[in-house]
Amino acid sequence: MIAPIKKNESILKSLSVLGEEAIGEIKAQKNPSVDIPLRNLSNVNFNPKKAIIEMGRAKQSREFFNIGMAKKYMQTFLVAEKCKDLLDEGKTTSIRDLYYMAKRTIPGTSENTFDEQEESDPIIEDLEVTADALREELGLFASNKGALVGELTLRDMGDTIDARKMGSGGWSIPSICEPNIVQFKRCDAKFILLVEKDAVWRRLNEDKFWKKHKCILLHGQGQPPRGVRRLLHRMVNELKLPLYTFVDNDPWGYYIYSVVKQGSINLAYESVRMAVPQAKFIGLSSFDKERWKIDDTVTIRLNDEDLKRAKQIMEYPWFQKKPWQVEIKNMLKLGYKLELEALSNRGISFVTEEYLPKKIKDREFLD
Amino acid sequence: MIAPIKKNESILKSLSVLGEEAIGEIKAQKNPSVDIPLRNLSNVNFNPKKAIIEMGRAKQSREFFNIGMAKKYMQTFLVAEKCKDLLDEGKTTSIRDLYYMAKRTIPGTSENTFDEQEESDPIIEDLEVTADALREELGLFASNKGALVGELTLRDMGDTIDARKMGSGGWSIPSICEPNIVQFKRCDAKFILLVEKDAVWRRLNEDKFWKKHKCILLHGQGQPPRGVRRLLHRMVNELKLPLYTFVDNDPWGYYIYSVVKQGSINLAYESVRMAVPQAKFIGLSSFDKERWKIDDTVTIRLNDEDLKRAKQIMEYPWFQKKPWQVEIKNMLKLGYKLELEALSNRGISFVTEEYLPKKIKDREFLD
Repeated sequence: MIAPIKKNESILKSLSVLGEEAIGEIKAQKNPSVDIPLRNLSNVNFNPKKAIIEMGRAKQSREFFNIGMAKKYMQTFLVAEKCKDLLDEGKTTSIRDLYYMAKRTIPGTSENTFDEQEESDPIIEDLEVTADALREELGLFASNKGALVGELTLRDMGDTIDARKMGSGGWSIPSICEPNIVQFKRCDAKFILLVEKDAVWRRLNEDKFWKKHKCILLHGQGQPPRGVRRLLHRMVNELKLPLYTFVDNDPWGYYIYSVVKQGSINLAYESVRMAVPQAKFIGLSSFDKERWKIDDTVTIRLNDEDLKRAKQIMEYPWFQKKPWQVEIKNMLKLGYKLELEALSNRGISFVTEEYLPKKIKDREFLD
Repeated sequence: MIAPIKKNESILKSLSVLGEEAIGEIKAQKNPSVDIPLRNLSNVNFNPKKAIIEMGRAKQSREFFNIGMAKKYMQTFLVAEKCKDLLDEGKTTSIRDLYYMAKRTIPGTSENTFDEQEESDPIIEDLEVTADALREELGLFASNKGALVGELTLRDMGDTIDARKMGSGGWSIPSICEPNIVQFKRCDAKFILLVEKDAVWRRLNEDKFWKKHKCILLHGQGQPPRGVRRLLHRMVNELKLPLYTFVDNDPWGYYIYSVVKQGSINLAYESVRMAVPQAKFIGLSSFDKERWKIDDTVTIRLNDEDLKRAKQIMEYPWFQKKPWQVEIKNMLKLGYKLELEALSNRGISFVTEEYLPKKIKDREFLD
């Protein structure tokens, strides 16, 4: 039985204030405008103290009486109106749906409110930063990816989900993991393990890794989607659990780890509610092949794109710590990458029975 | 608590027979060989009576004493051996893992058993047709996609999954849905609804569509993966439920429906255990825009690729029924496509409260 979604009153309030301010300006015969925090690179920086990528304070005024801005001004309020409707009705929808909901021809003209979803998506992002709300708090969701099993009971829209009893499939992680939808109940886990690949997640689930080692085991099918990132953030902060990230040994694996940990440049405004600076990197490390006697045949030569990306990543401020420079340089020196599945060359349950337990016991992490 | 996977004795037996026959041939000093059913287009046809795409009876002999075949012969037995190990241990793994498990340099040579996964994947398909087993029965899985909620209780590796209590996320459909892993228990559903897109699935779940209309609601994130197809096949046949397929109105939506129903040319050998000839098409139909008064602005013009694909599809033997020709011709005549999300233009819950209930009540399906 699905319970109705609890209303998020503070977000509703932000949206109402936005509208009321516009009405006030109109009544006062001023040029109506909204101040929108800038989302471009110039207004993004890495905060070494908080260890997250965050937005600066620069804003831009979006004005109604301005030929270049009038349409965007109208679109901003149209999207805000639809989001307010969603919240009032206690419903959620996709960003594609929202585009369709708001699309129409303006009466008496041949002008559409929106022509493409490429127009409504940035407006949603504008609204997120202006109303200081994640799109999920506005009732909008992205794609549904990832699954979870382990030592946790939670509530999802009024249903109790015992993640200890989710079979081989697991609980499908919803794209909206806000507190009004998902609440944590009993937790017996000592840590969280995020696995890049669902195949390896399945191996660990089948081997009951989460039961033996008392953890929450989840995957995000590659780069974790927003729902998984938000859930990780909430679990780490509310359940006070450490998070270990288990990814391929290649620049893309390092990057997945870094997005989970510090956030991303494109979505810097979300870091504060999604990044997990506490996250640790458990592997695969470029030193693993030698340490774990992994066969030569399972390595894959780094291609040009890998080399380019690895060099880019080495320059990022958040990869400047000595151990990380050593880690990445070693990968470049060796000239190959290693996928999680390569561990199977040492035996199908090698990852469950040897690799991970020893790494966790010895606290062999990169931070 | 995850129960051990039950052994599939008949598959184990097929694999043993394969090995024993080879030993017999060696002892009798014959040229060891395996007869492998041909998987190419010449050996695939549409069976109008069964209404599925199926394989013919042509086979090819793969011989050990043949320079062009010796390596593939060795690879066939190597893959068979690893699958037998998996089944003996009651474990499952991904096809990528299997590649890594079987990869090594042959002692005393510089030759690898496999150089790329592109070599082991076709061998797996050979083994599937030779041993008359789905790869899932051999313990191999593909990607994990799709989620399920609704009026069904099932068992997944010993855990009871009540799909009525899966919150907003749902039960993540595992990639192996064979009877030794997934069993059906209590079913109160009257039909199954497969939705192409997870966003629309989420809308229907949030609106409790499955509860009001007593159904099983699932999505496969676009083209359903093997696990979802196998699960559909089993639910339709074991639970005796009708299946309605709900896809975008474009050639790709039609094709998703047709793969669910008849199977695909590439994987013709699986049709018998995956195709659901009973499946019905509930929409979106090219006649829906007019019938349901959907706004002009939400249509999307067919591009060249769409047009080409639509014409291809019209030629397929399984789309020769009159209503289908009318359906596709009408889309071509109108010149536009329509996404599931376009229904939101009529209101966020229009799909739940009006469109689907009326279509089901009036039995407005294409078959």
